[in-house]
Amino acid sequence: MITALAGGVGAAKLLRGFIEVLPPEEITALVNTGDDTVFHGLHVSPDLDTVMYTLADAINPETGWGLAGETWRVMESLRRLGGLTWFNLGDQDLATHCYRTQRLSEGATLSEVTRELARSFGVDIRLQPVTDDPLRTRLTLVDGPEVGFQEYFVKHHHDVAVASVTFAGAAESRPAPGVLDAIEQAEVVVVCPSNPVVSIGPVLAVPGIRKALMSRRDDAVGISPIIAGAALKGPADRLLVEMGFEASVVGVARWYAPMISTLVIDEADADLATAVEAEGVRCVVAPTLMTSKEASAQLARTVLDVAS
Amino acid sequence: MITALAGGVGAAKLLRGFIEVLPPEEITALVNTGDDTVFHGLHVSPDLDTVMYTLADAINPETGWGLAGETWRVMESLRRLGGLTWFNLGDQDLATHCYRTQRLSEGATLSEVTRELARSFGVDIRLQPVTDDPLRTRLTLVDGPEVGFQEYFVKHHHDVAVASVTFAGAAESRPAPGVLDAIEQAEVVVVCPSNPVVSIGPVLAVPGIRKALMSRRDDAVGISPIIAGAALKGPADRLLVEMGFEASVVGVARWYAPMISTLVIDEADADLATAVEAEGVRCVVAPTLMTSKEASAQLARTVLDVAS
Repeated sequence: MITALAGGVGAAKLLRGFIEVLPPEEITALVNTGDDTVFHGLHVSPDLDTVMYTLADAINPETGWGLAGETWRVMESLRRLGGLTWFNLGDQDLATHCYRTQRLSEGATLSEVTRELARSFGVDIRLQPVTDDPLRTRLTLVDGPEVGFQEYFVKHHHDVAVASVTFAGAAESRPAPGVLDAIEQAEVVVVCPSNPVVSIGPVLAVPGIRKALMSRRDDAVGISPIIAGAALKGPADRLLVEMGFEASVVGVARWYAPMISTLVIDEADADLATAVEAEGVRCVVAPTLMTSKEASAQLARTVLDVAS
Repeated sequence: MITALAGGVGAAKLLRGFIEVLPPEEITALVNTGDDTVFHGLHVSPDLDTVMYTLADAINPETGWGLAGETWRVMESLRRLGGLTWFNLGDQDLATHCYRTQRLSEGATLSEVTRELARSFGVDIRLQPVTDDPLRTRLTLVDGPEVGFQEYFVKHHHDVAVASVTFAGAAESRPAPGVLDAIEQAEVVVVCPSNPVVSIGPVLAVPGIRKALMSRRDDAVGISPIIAGAALKGPADRLLVEMGFEASVVGVARWYAPMISTLVIDEADADLATAVEAEGVRCVVAPTLMTSKEASAQLARTVLDVAS
């Protein structure tokens, strides 16, 4: 049984590997909800959906987000109305958000809605939002106001300097039912190759999670989202530096050292293995680029191997 | 300058006639919002949209609601997810609701949003929700619970007995800015051929409206939505009986007698003209079936003629 801390695309690709090598009922993904937001009144959960669509083999392979074969009728009409369209939501994707919003308005928890959606999409792993309570990543820009995550990520193309990151609602949030158990009872805890600051950061900000993870450090394996000093996608490299860390596997090791005993780094960073270990973390060098389902499965096998 | 009290389809057809015979800036439509509801988190204003789409020549001519050339991608996906789909929302129509919901969430009033949407759709009359406050028509069924208007109208196909009708929020609502002025300053007040109980009823339930209308009784003309004892569309006939009125032009005359001095009835009801006048309302017999734009324009001319 594994429990994986997950953000969006990188985590989705690794989980797609895990379902090739483990029965789905042995996999729990604790997914970031700090990116969740409301557009047009609709509750959007980008990371939950990216993981769900990827595991359903329904993801748009070109973008890594959204659904394959998507159409854009609503957005085209909304553009003609002068509406808010910088966050592009496809027609099929909108149905997911309509479903989620309606069920939440009826009193269902995000965990319940996520289970229902996962079942509809044929996703058999336990897909679990880290919390059912509001949790919102907020970024204070160096030259501007505080903005929400999607505004930073999509509207500003994460091409702006960040002074600080906060997780609104974190202090009052509770881990969703079963989340702490999933960490405590896992044979292996996996920290997916997601953005440490804005994907795993919100997960760690939910009271109780960090402590539970620290108690499982011996069985926890992380995979560096930084390869050769850069993030494959998104602003993980830039944000690590802005938070005072190195944009390297060494910075990742330092960030996660209290919670993981092993860090898997890419072969491109083999020369930094000693520096990683100097952070008090065992270093495993392996191919980490998940360019195919088979590559994802191979990385999943590596994680299980190094954990045992 | 005319001010028209409006529900959905019947009112939209008459207003389509008025824009043929009057400059648009001389027409104000005070539209029912008692049918407004939230589906999937989206604020839907059925009567405002029916009027807007009709005046924009964008209405689906087959259904009388929704947009011509509509597609149903979101609903098809939502159906696959097991979502709430008994209220069918087309993709282009959803964009209207997304726009409205987003703007309301930003603090705009329904009046402001309606003006913005009308401008986008090229609708030049003053399209005005009767109130910016929540107003919700609720029906207590004889054999069941209290339901919202759309549940009664769409889900139950208005084929259930109604014990009573209430307008939730009415007591606390205020006429939207300019609404009372529009009634007081109009040369002619028109009560459109809409459902007296559930389309005009909510408008009259907003404090101040009924009194303002009564003060303009001499200049107010109604058009009967009942022809030969039946509603052209919807449950106006049935509801009038359930409210203790006749399902006839006489019942309509009695319902509106405190607020209108003239009722236009269809030629099919010519034999009831004397009975209408016995209710204290002048009766004008004219063709009222609006089967074409020209027929709508002719009825609009009739209304202006009898008012002057």
